[in-house]
Amino acid sequence: GARRLEGLGVTIFSEMTRLAIAHGAINLGQGFPDFPGPDFVKEAAVAAIRADLNQYAPSHGLPRLRQVIARSFEQSYGHPVDPEGEVTVTTGATEGLHAALLALVDPGDEVIVFEPFYDAYLAQIRFAGGVPRPVTLWPPDWRFDPDELAGAFGPRTRAVIVNTPHNPTGKAFTRDELALIAALCQEHDVLAITDEVYDRILYDGAVHIPLATLPGMWERTITLNSTGKTFSMTGWKIGWAIAPPPLTQAIRTAHQFITFATATPFQEAMAVALEHAAESGYYAELAAAYSERREALRRALELAGLPVLPCLGSYFLLADASGLGFPDDVSLCRYLVTEVGVAAIPPSAFYADPARAPVLARFCFAKRLETIQAAAERLARLP
Amino acid sequence: GARRLEGLGVTIFSEMTRLAIAHGAINLGQGFPDFPGPDFVKEAAVAAIRADLNQYAPSHGLPRLRQVIARSFEQSYGHPVDPEGEVTVTTGATEGLHAALLALVDPGDEVIVFEPFYDAYLAQIRFAGGVPRPVTLWPPDWRFDPDELAGAFGPRTRAVIVNTPHNPTGKAFTRDELALIAALCQEHDVLAITDEVYDRILYDGAVHIPLATLPGMWERTITLNSTGKTFSMTGWKIGWAIAPPPLTQAIRTAHQFITFATATPFQEAMAVALEHAAESGYYAELAAAYSERREALRRALELAGLPVLPCLGSYFLLADASGLGFPDDVSLCRYLVTEVGVAAIPPSAFYADPARAPVLARFCFAKRLETIQAAAERLARLP
Ligand SMILES: CSCCC(=O)C(=O)O
Ligand SMILES: CSCCC(=O)C(=O)O
Repeated sequence: GARRLEGLGVTIFSEMTRLAIAHGAINLGQGFPDFPGPDFVKEAAVAAIRADLNQYAPSHGLPRLRQVIARSFEQSYGHPVDPEGEVTVTTGATEGLHAALLALVDPGDEVIVFEPFYDAYLAQIRFAGGVPRPVTLWPPDWRFDPDELAGAFGPRTRAVIVNTPHNPTGKAFTRDELALIAALCQEHDVLAITDEVYDRILYDGAVHIPLATLPGMWERTITLNSTGKTFSMTGWKIGWAIAPPPLTQAIRTAHQFITFATATPFQEAMAVALEHAAESGYYAELAAAYSERREALRRALELAGLPVLPCLGSYFLLADASGLGFPDDVSLCRYLVTEVGVAAIPPSAFYADPARAPVLARFCFAKRLETIQAAAERLARLP
Repeated sequence: GARRLEGLGVTIFSEMTRLAIAHGAINLGQGFPDFPGPDFVKEAAVAAIRADLNQYAPSHGLPRLRQVIARSFEQSYGHPVDPEGEVTVTTGATEGLHAALLALVDPGDEVIVFEPFYDAYLAQIRFAGGVPRPVTLWPPDWRFDPDELAGAFGPRTRAVIVNTPHNPTGKAFTRDELALIAALCQEHDVLAITDEVYDRILYDGAVHIPLATLPGMWERTITLNSTGKTFSMTGWKIGWAIAPPPLTQAIRTAHQFITFATATPFQEAMAVALEHAAESGYYAELAAAYSERREALRRALELAGLPVLPCLGSYFLLADASGLGFPDDVSLCRYLVTEVGVAAIPPSAFYADPARAPVLARFCFAKRLETIQAAAERLARLP
């Protein structure tokens, strides 16, 4: 293999799903719903397939979907978006980030990431020849040290990646935190790349603030999103990148040589879904349903003696398992999947240096209440 | 944008489709069918969506699809394939090639390509930091000079890309040609990456020979394919890479950080399609239907005074337009789309140095006979 693969193995999500299946465990590891997405979205895809929308879409996306994405962003976050020059449909947010990094990062450029970070970021920065520069988020409330962040910006800094709401911590970056990031980006002429795939899954009155909408940030921000989490169709791989025209042009240039285009019928279906959601109260229902699941999982974990950390967004809870006496989160999660029958993700997979990770376990609550109840029964057997 | 994008613009396919729409031209440019794919394939996708196969597939592909891909290759080409360790489902052959190059090519490695080559190859080699090393295919029968090929292999050569049946020329590499490539790969310890997306679209008794099946080649060959052309669903983006276990492992490692996984319902549908095709005579019907379309387009072009070059595979014909007196194929194709109302692709887009391209135009015949007839009427007005 090429040198850029050194040290990269199978993702923790694939590995844990495999172990969950092998041990008959309840899978609260990899983040995906165990309930179906909405019927109206499925039927929109069926209609598109039967209407023969089955050939290549334009490389940068179906016009109708780009228009709906632009309108939806403007309605929700108050900043206009030009569907012609500022939206690129990508094969999930994962491909969107890969395209953005290939398009904008040169070998040797530094990219700031908040640690813990979604595991793909590190590999993708390396694929672009970039150098990751982690900045720590500190438990339990996952704030960063402003001086550490300021110190990370330097002459080689090309971009900062911000994931809000944040996986795996459930943190929603505050306006003050985003303002500091914005000021540093402008001071050092740095791009921001935001991963906002959980923007519709927030709790306790928390609001989502796209970094792109802060003063002076539109022209230097790439906003990534996808429909997998919002419409419970993680297997459809419809994402997008919103960025000002010069950055969009670069992203499109890279994208056309990565996947060329994204599955046409699912683009059409997601245009229908986004249009419907804007008018129907869908997002409020989604957040309310997740709030109930979060509460069910929180109760299950706390009854089992695993106190949870605060979670304002995403569909993950971090549980403090230091009381169980495991030396690290990997041995903890291995025990949970093999002996307790519940799969979770060790957050150390989200650290550049796994030894820096606190002993926590990430549990996904994108599950039916019965699934959470079944997990609760197994977790209750914990010593 | 990053330096790796320098000189890269919008692909000629997107550009020509845009011009075709703007000028109301009949689009024989970008390669995609204007007729629907088979109903049984569409209904298999509908069934998968309604059965809620809508969450992440395993990153390397649904087990059922990998099994069918392996069986289909073995049945057709006589070499066994292990679906567990030798098949990776990719988001089209485009993502498959990108993943293979990122997985296997280090900065500075040389990659041999036969020129003309599919336009993405050059960009994708560059994305991996590789250095393209073109070897010329000479019209009208697109053979290469064995000495030129041998001279292209050297200590920095990492891989050779072979596209057979070949886009845009319609060439099917012969067993002798493949044997020479195989001998050089083994002599110089070089990998082969083959793009075989037109393997089911061959004419006049030509047979497809996967380079991987030649003696000594399995362990050094990545075979790329996709279902877009074979099942007339270019918008579904289901492809795959077949490679021996160590190469497969590297490809999967890259793939999980490019798109992570590929649209689940279309993977399921393509498993059904491949299974059905193996038993039903589908491939023979497909080739026969394309043979009829090829003949219709050939007649149309020759009646218009544009003699065609031989075409043994793919769904493209190259027409010799030197009689029309255009200085290059770009001005020719611009005239065709704006004045004649028929879009074609200038093959110079498939050359590292466009000035080396002969003045030809590539016409796609993946079209209804009525579409070809309508194009014939317009072409008949050529001076
Ligand atoms: C791409 S599989 C991982 C899904 C996910 O976002 C997670 O579990 O964190
Ligand atoms: C990915 S668009 C190009 C389709 C095609 O293979 C061609 O026209 O050559």
